Amino acid sequence: MIEDQIIDRIVKRIGRQAPRRSRRASPDLILGIGDDAAIVRPRAGADWVLSSDFSLEDVHFRRSYPPEAIGYRSLARAVSDLGAMGAHPEFFLLSISLPSERTGPWLDRFLAGMASASRRYSLQLIGGDTTRWAKVAIAITVIGRAACHRAIRRDGARAGDRLYVSGQLGAAALGLAVLRQKKRTGSMRFAVGSRCPKILRQHLYPAIPIELGIHLAEGKIASAMIDLSDGLSTDLARLARASRVGARVFLDRLPAVPVPAPLARGGLDAIDLALNGGEDYGLLFTVPARRAARVPGSFRGVPITCIGEIVPGRGVKLVGSDGRERRLAAAGWDPFRQKR
Amino acid sequence: MIEDQIIDRIVKRIGRQAPRRSRRASPDLILGIGDDAAIVRPRAGADWVLSSDFSLEDVHFRRSYPPEAIGYRSLARAVSDLGAMGAHPEFFLLSISLPSERTGPWLDRFLAGMASASRRYSLQLIGGDTTRWAKVAIAITVIGRAACHRAIRRDGARAGDRLYVSGQLGAAALGLAVLRQKKRTGSMRFAVGSRCPKILRQHLYPAIPIELGIHLAEGKIASAMIDLSDGLSTDLARLARASRVGARVFLDRLPAVPVPAPLARGGLDAIDLALNGGEDYGLLFTVPARRAARVPGSFRGVPITCIGEIVPGRGVKLVGSDGRERRLAAAGWDPFRQKR
Repeated sequence: MIEDQIIDRIVKRIGRQAPRRSRRASPDLILGIGDDAAIVRPRAGADWVLSSDFSLEDVHFRRSYPPEAIGYRSLARAVSDLGAMGAHPEFFLLSISLPSERTGPWLDRFLAGMASASRRYSLQLIGGDTTRWAKVAIAITVIGRAACHRAIRRDGARAGDRLYVSGQLGAAALGLAVLRQKKRTGSMRFAVGSRCPKILRQHLYPAIPIELGIHLAEGKIASAMIDLSDGLSTDLARLARASRVGARVFLDRLPAVPVPAPLARGGLDAIDLALNGGEDYGLLFTVPARRAARVPGSFRGVPITCIGEIVPGRGVKLVGSDGRERRLAAAGWDPFRQKR
Repeated sequence: MIEDQIIDRIVKRIGRQAPRRSRRASPDLILGIGDDAAIVRPRAGADWVLSSDFSLEDVHFRRSYPPEAIGYRSLARAVSDLGAMGAHPEFFLLSISLPSERTGPWLDRFLAGMASASRRYSLQLIGGDTTRWAKVAIAITVIGRAACHRAIRRDGARAGDRLYVSGQLGAAALGLAVLRQKKRTGSMRFAVGSRCPKILRQHLYPAIPIELGIHLAEGKIASAMIDLSDGLSTDLARLARASRVGARVFLDRLPAVPVPAPLARGGLDAIDLALNGGEDYGLLFTVPARRAARVPGSFRGVPITCIGEIVPGRGVKLVGSDGRERRLAAAGWDPFRQKR
């Protein structure tokens, strides 16, 4: 039975190897892969945090990407939603469709990348679905755990709060732009895993600041949080709308990724990437002024930058070097626009 | 923001309307759709049961199907895995990719069908993902609840147990065959919802015996259970392999769907449909002989039939009318074979 053989390979490669961060606090896995469904027994005093994410060929990745990167980033993108709630990753379910020619070595390399992400983020595979199809489609559901009432929502920002981001802005979009240029020049060559060039790394192997999210939640530091999946301008608009507040962002403070001179000459603008580039997966969060001293300058090597403030009213404003304000339109990625 | 508008439509149509079967026993929904992730607070004394399912264009449905049926059956197929564990359905996450031309009335009709299934099976939508894509791909994760240690696995069958199925065998495969013939003759016309002809109903709007599964679990009646998703021959082989036992099926006892004479003359064989037709979504379960008296002849109008027995050893045998045994090969649906 070929389907069952593929499931066996998935289980062998990523099913039983995720180390558990904290055995005592974790829910018990009663039954994993192999039955109609998985069974988990939650522990008392914990909330469960759940999110689903698609990673689709030609939308979230190209067929030409190294399979390791597709596997790694599919899971990293999904776990980012747990980070944005400040939840501990626990389990995931993987549904994957595959063309026949991708069920051999390609699948093994894909699973190696996903296994690497499952170890990095302490996620255990507990179920899923496989089917043959013309396109590679990956659907992942992640399940995390947070102490009751500690998960951080989007809707808790208040006027007067300070606004922070983790990491660089635009790094993933810069990597994507580089990949597209390489494709055009016909010199598409990728490095795999740790040999991946730095300029491509946040796009192909995104680093998710999951521990920072947990720190901000468990320390009751942040009042609202969202992950930067679609770009600062779009995700900040979402946070502000959910919280029914406005926001001001200071252009000079944006931790924009440095754009190499040849690329800048080719039209890539660091500020545009920082404001509208998607898939950085940094955290965008707000902190009441009285708790601002508890925000570190960096966390596990990831810089944290105060980029603005929450204000009364609605809408997001960008404050330029000259002090002038202009409206910041939500111009990040929307899959239902024709941008990509 | 068009993506956010689509999410709003999904929420409006199916997000907040599933009636809760039993408020006291249910986990509390702390935060539903609209944030990075959903938050649920499980109650003590319950296990959580989780399963994911793909429904993909050209694999699980055709583009020409009524959108109501695609929405209904996508969710029904997923909930069947909860039924097979004897779990109460609670929540689901819906990820859906859509071509642009399907984001209008098509999506509304799809959501109406899915809303109908969510009401029927008491499932509440708590999250998901949407994206634009050339193909309609639906990935659903369902979450159910079972009293601790009561969920029924595949691996509990023992030699001497009796073997039962619920419902008719081959009904969904017969409907699929009819649809294919109609397509060939160019007279493809579908009825929607309750106006759907009976012969197409189990394929387009599958009835899932979720209450029977719960009854068999909570009454501690069944020793092992699986849903008939890929066909009796394949699913029984899975149950027997997981339980490390063999099985004997009596040909004369199979509750095979009646095949109308014109279709039978065209080559459709009731026994082949009963043994190898997929997607019936009845329950296949085993019961120790001492508890056999507690198995009803029907449950909420669904017939229950004893079709065989569990025996020592390995492999599945089919016993003919003449008493002769032959090996029953697993010839149901496997997405990685080229059958469909």
